[in-house]
Amino acid sequence: MARFLKNRDANKGLSPGSLVFIGKQKVENHRIRLIDYDAESLREEELQTLDDAGQFYTSDTNSWINIDGLHHVEVIQDAGRLFELHPLLMEDILNTGQRPKMEEFDTCLFFVLRMLRHNKEENIIISEQLSMVLGEKFLLTFQEQQGDVFEPVRVRIRKQKGRIRSSGVDYLAYALMDTLVDNYIAIIEHLGEEIEDLEEEVLENPTASVMEKINTYKREMNFLRKAIRPAREMVLKLIHEDFPLIQETSRPFLKDLLDLFTEATEAIDAYRDFLTDLMNLYNTAISNKMNDIMKVLTIFAALFIPLTFVAGIYGTNFEYVPELHYKYSYYIFLGVLFVMGSGLMYYFKRKNWF
Amino acid sequence: MARFLKNRDANKGLSPGSLVFIGKQKVENHRIRLIDYDAESLREEELQTLDDAGQFYTSDTNSWINIDGLHHVEVIQDAGRLFELHPLLMEDILNTGQRPKMEEFDTCLFFVLRMLRHNKEENIIISEQLSMVLGEKFLLTFQEQQGDVFEPVRVRIRKQKGRIRSSGVDYLAYALMDTLVDNYIAIIEHLGEEIEDLEEEVLENPTASVMEKINTYKREMNFLRKAIRPAREMVLKLIHEDFPLIQETSRPFLKDLLDLFTEATEAIDAYRDFLTDLMNLYNTAISNKMNDIMKVLTIFAALFIPLTFVAGIYGTNFEYVPELHYKYSYYIFLGVLFVMGSGLMYYFKRKNWF
Amino acid sequence: MARFLKNRDANKGLSPGSLVFIGKQKVENHRIRLIDYDAESLREEELQTLDDAGQFYTSDTNSWINIDGLHHVEVIQDAGRLFELHPLLMEDILNTGQRPKMEEFDTCLFFVLRMLRHNKEENIIISEQLSMVLGEKFLLTFQEQQGDVFEPVRVRIRKQKGRIRSSGVDYLAYALMDTLVDNYIAIIEHLGEEIEDLEEEVLENPTASVMEKINTYKREMNFLRKAIRPAREMVLKLIHEDFPLIQETSRPFLKDLLDLFTEATEAIDAYRDFLTDLMNLYNTAISNKMNDIMKVLTIFAALFIPLTFVAGIYGTNFEYVPELHYKYSYYIFLGVLFVMGSGLMYYFKRKNWF
Amino acid sequence: MARFLKNRDANKGLSPGSLVFIGKQKVENHRIRLIDYDAESLREEELQTLDDAGQFYTSDTNSWINIDGLHHVEVIQDAGRLFELHPLLMEDILNTGQRPKMEEFDTCLFFVLRMLRHNKEENIIISEQLSMVLGEKFLLTFQEQQGDVFEPVRVRIRKQKGRIRSSGVDYLAYALMDTLVDNYIAIIEHLGEEIEDLEEEVLENPTASVMEKINTYKREMNFLRKAIRPAREMVLKLIHEDFPLIQETSRPFLKDLLDLFTEATEAIDAYRDFLTDLMNLYNTAISNKMNDIMKVLTIFAALFIPLTFVAGIYGTNFEYVPELHYKYSYYIFLGVLFVMGSGLMYYFKRKNWF
Amino acid sequence: MARFLKNRDANKGLSPGSLVFIGKQKVENHRIRLIDYDAESLREEELQTLDDAGQFYTSDTNSWINIDGLHHVEVIQDAGRLFELHPLLMEDILNTGQRPKMEEFDTCLFFVLRMLRHNKEENIIISEQLSMVLGEKFLLTFQEQQGDVFEPVRVRIRKQKGRIRSSGVDYLAYALMDTLVDNYIAIIEHLGEEIEDLEEEVLENPTASVMEKINTYKREMNFLRKAIRPAREMVLKLIHEDFPLIQETSRPFLKDLLDLFTEATEAIDAYRDFLTDLMNLYNTAISNKMNDIMKVLTIFAALFIPLTFVAGIYGTNFEYVPELHYKYSYYIFLGVLFVMGSGLMYYFKRKNWF
Repeated sequence: MARFLKNRDANKGLSPGSLVFIGKQKVENHRIRLIDYDAESLREEELQTLDDAGQFYTSDTNSWINIDGLHHVEVIQDAGRLFELHPLLMEDILNTGQRPKMEEFDTCLFFVLRMLRHNKEENIIISEQLSMVLGEKFLLTFQEQQGDVFEPVRVRIRKQKGRIRSSGVDYLAYALMDTLVDNYIAIIEHLGEEIEDLEEEVLENPTASVMEKINTYKREMNFLRKAIRPAREMVLKLIHEDFPLIQETSRPFLKDLLDLFTEATEAIDAYRDFLTDLMNLYNTAISNKMNDIMKVLTIFAALFIPLTFVAGIYGTNFEYVPELHYKYSYYIFLGVLFVMGSGLMYYFKRKNWF
Repeated sequence: MARFLKNRDANKGLSPGSLVFIGKQKVENHRIRLIDYDAESLREEELQTLDDAGQFYTSDTNSWINIDGLHHVEVIQDAGRLFELHPLLMEDILNTGQRPKMEEFDTCLFFVLRMLRHNKEENIIISEQLSMVLGEKFLLTFQEQQGDVFEPVRVRIRKQKGRIRSSGVDYLAYALMDTLVDNYIAIIEHLGEEIEDLEEEVLENPTASVMEKINTYKREMNFLRKAIRPAREMVLKLIHEDFPLIQETSRPFLKDLLDLFTEATEAIDAYRDFLTDLMNLYNTAISNKMNDIMKVLTIFAALFIPLTFVAGIYGTNFEYVPELHYKYSYYIFLGVLFVMGSGLMYYFKRKNWF
Repeated sequence: MARFLKNRDANKGLSPGSLVFIGKQKVENHRIRLIDYDAESLREEELQTLDDAGQFYTSDTNSWINIDGLHHVEVIQDAGRLFELHPLLMEDILNTGQRPKMEEFDTCLFFVLRMLRHNKEENIIISEQLSMVLGEKFLLTFQEQQGDVFEPVRVRIRKQKGRIRSSGVDYLAYALMDTLVDNYIAIIEHLGEEIEDLEEEVLENPTASVMEKINTYKREMNFLRKAIRPAREMVLKLIHEDFPLIQETSRPFLKDLLDLFTEATEAIDAYRDFLTDLMNLYNTAISNKMNDIMKVLTIFAALFIPLTFVAGIYGTNFEYVPELHYKYSYYIFLGVLFVMGSGLMYYFKRKNWF
Repeated sequence: MARFLKNRDANKGLSPGSLVFIGKQKVENHRIRLIDYDAESLREEELQTLDDAGQFYTSDTNSWINIDGLHHVEVIQDAGRLFELHPLLMEDILNTGQRPKMEEFDTCLFFVLRMLRHNKEENIIISEQLSMVLGEKFLLTFQEQQGDVFEPVRVRIRKQKGRIRSSGVDYLAYALMDTLVDNYIAIIEHLGEEIEDLEEEVLENPTASVMEKINTYKREMNFLRKAIRPAREMVLKLIHEDFPLIQETSRPFLKDLLDLFTEATEAIDAYRDFLTDLMNLYNTAISNKMNDIMKVLTIFAALFIPLTFVAGIYGTNFEYVPELHYKYSYYIFLGVLFVMGSGLMYYFKRKNWF
Repeated sequence: MARFLKNRDANKGLSPGSLVFIGKQKVENHRIRLIDYDAESLREEELQTLDDAGQFYTSDTNSWINIDGLHHVEVIQDAGRLFELHPLLMEDILNTGQRPKMEEFDTCLFFVLRMLRHNKEENIIISEQLSMVLGEKFLLTFQEQQGDVFEPVRVRIRKQKGRIRSSGVDYLAYALMDTLVDNYIAIIEHLGEEIEDLEEEVLENPTASVMEKINTYKREMNFLRKAIRPAREMVLKLIHEDFPLIQETSRPFLKDLLDLFTEATEAIDAYRDFLTDLMNLYNTAISNKMNDIMKVLTIFAALFIPLTFVAGIYGTNFEYVPELHYKYSYYIFLGVLFVMGSGLMYYFKRKNWF
């Protein structure tokens, strides 16, 4: 499949707003988890159907409803009906492979983000679309599969750590994004260390496989950049425009979030530059190696070819070659060869060739 | 013909606004198709002349008049007269090879776009200018030749799918553009897969023909970019400026359209970067191959040239060479050669040359 | 002479506004042509002195006064006196080698443009400064030498084609610029075709002269860009700012003009990218050729040097070499050489070297 | 550790605003120094706890409290309590590895900067985070370890040099930043001189180690740029926006500061370009060296291989070779070899190969 | 000394506004020249001390006081006292090595510019800081050493050429800047011609010294750019912002000045691109040369090595080699060699190798 594009075949020609899940089905079942809380109370449970969640649309407490698994289109339709979501918003949730973005609707803010997780066993980065719908008193999150990076946030809610219980759902949304970007940074750091290890390899053993690795990392960095940069712009917009759903007290936290995104994008750019430098270094290392090979060839060839020629002269079968019959000819001959060879070696030495 | 320019010779020196068809005649006949609809009624027929269509200029129903074939200048003149089009607008319709753009006139919005189709048999991309004139109750579309990508939209109108029948002509225009950009993305995806396959070829067999392919794809990506980027800017303008002919309810759909255009342009940029990486990889592969060749040469030359020299010494015809007459000389000679050869092989081995 | 700068030596140290002709004298005589017209009347004649033209400053008809030849400073002084031109404006007219620009003065708009003509016999591009002074009822044009690209406009005036006779002098100025840019595009097209032909040459016969050609075309493209880009900016300014001398009805034509300038600059950029690609292709072709040469060398050397060594062994004159005296030794020797050679050939074959 | 990112592991999942020291502990003890002054009075002492400093929050004199050592989180907590600092601000102080930035809070301006010091013995650059909190009558500075570059400022306060004693704390903050940037420039200058010395090395002895040096300096310049550019933007913001804590009379000094930052960033960019040029030069030097090697090889091989061949012909053992028996054959043979050799040498000479 | 930074060591740690001359002392004595003029009167004399000049601060006539030599700090202090200059302004005058800039103070405009002079004997460019203080009725200029490029302006004042005598000191300032930029252009032109001459050298004899020259010119162009670009921005600011000291009638002259600066920066950019092209051309020329060398080597080696091998076979001393004893063997042998050689030559010819 083309790597830089989501597959849109499934809904080509459909009218916009039609609900079709675009992506690979990654889980068997879906799962709906509710955390309903305010400063005093906390209720956490797993729901069978979204119908049970409809009451939280208007309740006074903060409600976080998290849905894992997108292939049951009906669940999304339920969500759309119960929380009055725009058809295009629902289409975007199902269209995994979206560019990170924010959109404002009449009753909610809609965020699309990438959730990245580093699978340490297989050393691969798993990318998943995270859609968030932020209402006045509720936050819906949609994930492609089970398992996420949000456990620390859940712990904070349960343990009443920090200001999370006493703040609104906009702060919850911020806390989730903060966790996301922390993960981005951890992944960049992990890749970064591997990239920095490449330098030694390039200098000591510049094989073709190093070049392939450099290219792979470059592509992964580009991939990360595509996930993070639009998200950074999104946070910038959140700070500079005025959204009624975002409270004034959340602004310093958003600025802090922006700093993290900025740090992440700058680190990516720094590693991209580093990889470009590595590539130059690699090409230089290859040229140096070539020079070394050529020097060896030239020294051997330029040393022995003339000597062989001299030997060749006295290997001729001319009848009258006076030198051949003189008693010490052979030793003089050897001496001449030795002097010639030494002279050439001195010449190469002076040229700093070895 | 110069590839990056339309041929303007035909109207050089003509006064602007003169109607001359600039482009290659691609079809024998032109064809005028009318689809006139509102939420309840639907009328679809083929018209002989545009005069039959004049009534739809002012009718209350939505009218989509599609004209294939531009070489009959009179048809365009008819359209201009019946729908009160500006002379420069009519010139632009005939001037196939325009840059995508939007222009606002007193009574209509005028769009120029590229319609791309992928001919799978011959594996070529066919590019055609699509001009759209959006009025209050009508939409004129002008194509260079018959056959287009709009059949799914027609089906939606006929089957009353989605909101198309209950919306205005601005939604119809949006639906057509949406279909266009879906096609762009499908084409980019197709090219993208072919480009990604190139990587293996570059690494395994970096022949000159691979480089030519890389260059060809680069040029095709540039071509696509020239078609898509101005169109994206056009959609941006549609969203951010206020056009009376675009209804407020269409805005979310335009934003969705913008997302698709953004995705298309980003994918193109990603593939362009990928091709640049491939080129670097190719050059590196060539250098590596050169190094391999040089190593083989150097090993052979540096191994056998000194040995040949030693053999040459004992091929000389000096009368007094004591070693020649000693009984085991030949075996000692062979032994010396073997030791010399082994030493050189060890030296090359230590240099990691094989 | 330095190519990227006009020669300013002649007026170094003069007070600004001093009139000195800077440029090479290209014609012997100057020539003053008047076309005075409105929708009904037309008067076309050649004037001896500009004094005869003074009356047209205030007349109600449109007057186009074209002056060829700038070396008679007095003519420009006359123009300045009769049409009340600012001293700096007059200096700019004489200072051929100006960057295209527009300046607004109290009573007129002043344009500096480059007129390019392709001399087909010698295959060179002739560049000349065209200065235009647009007043309310007059248009002055100053050319360095006789011969221009404006004949089609004159024909249109004479034959009352299009709207030129019924429009003001601002439309005439537009028509002249339109003709200029048509010529730019024709020249780019011509160069473009030659550039595209280079690709085959690069791939098939990458000699040093091809590289020189690539460099020459690159420089010509840069030259064109320097002439066209500021002119495009000028048109942009004409559209977006409000100049009393430009009528509202001319605006769509200016937009059309802008499209042409945009097309020209984009084509130039496309060809510049193409030339960069060609350079990369050239370097790759050179590397490939080098690889081919090296392969031939290596095959020959690696094949015959070991064989020669073996022959060398049996060319030694040791007294006791048992193999020499065995009857079939020579044939076995030949057989061994053949096997060795075949083995090496097989090895090179497997490496895909031929 | 990944070089382009601070290590955030320690507080991953913590609620924002939690205080954890992120960085390497660099000192055993912390140290609190107070300088309290106005135009007439001066008090300088070392404090045991910050509690002693609480009174300076509201006093009328200017108070500069400098804290070295960040690992005692309680000290920062004390500062937060006494000077009413925002939790995120305190987190940023402990999070060493921040990007330089400025943030406005209700009662103070918060600055994060990098303090760079050049350790001359080990020839390394030590980077440390400097956090500054500017209130109405106090300035808090937080350093990671003891030892700083601010001694000249302390001397100026003590000796009443310049306007420092008669100005507010905003001038003190400016004076510290001025000292910081003076140090940046001194470090750039130092690196710059070393970089410029590389040029000769590249031209005369382009070994692989030179390339490594170039890469190292490039990375150091990137590091400096990351420290200085955001700081420059910060000063720009200080000048262009209106902060009540910055007095109008400080503005010319801030402009002066901006000039210094601009100079520093331009010098960095100049050295980066210079390093890129050096890399090109290096690659060219390598190519030239390769050419030289190849010339030597080619001259030797092309000279002696043909001569050896001729000698080989007369080394054959054919029974009937008439030349062998002619008396002067050997001399003629030597003459032919000499003529052949001279001819080849002349040919190479004419090709300018030596 | 680090080339891209002024040396600031002398005032490191000093309080800003302290007066220390930073730069190399270039002259023994200073010199103060006064030109006091209006439309009718002119007074030109050399002053001993600035005290004599104090009266011109408030006089009605235009006064141009030019001071050569900055090492006598007292003179600058006198100027500061008499003309009420800000301490930072005075520091900037002494700090030679400033970036060109403009600053507005309460009673004056302050300009820092570079004065470049081309020393034709030694073919070097001398750079000197020129500081200008423009008041309502006076203009102070500070130069590092005697000798400047302003003589033509003095002549114009003396001879009452142009409008200089009847205009204010702002026009005088403009006239000086105009002279400066004329000199920039002359220097660029001079370097440009030398750069253009390099092209032939690159193509015909690409030695390492050519590459060094290219690098030197590149660095000089960067140096010029650093001097000119900020000055251009300064003029832009002068035009677009409103300064009471600049009269409205001077505006067209400033626009003219901007055109010259634009021309200068564009020429510099053009030459920088040209130098980049030359570098590419150089590398290509080197590759081509390498290819030529390799071809010669390959032809010689591939031709004679196989022939030598054949000769080697018949140089063996096997007892039973039937060919050796056939009477015409030698001639057949020579014939075979000739046919082999011709075949190989034909093969190389067909590959276009010579």
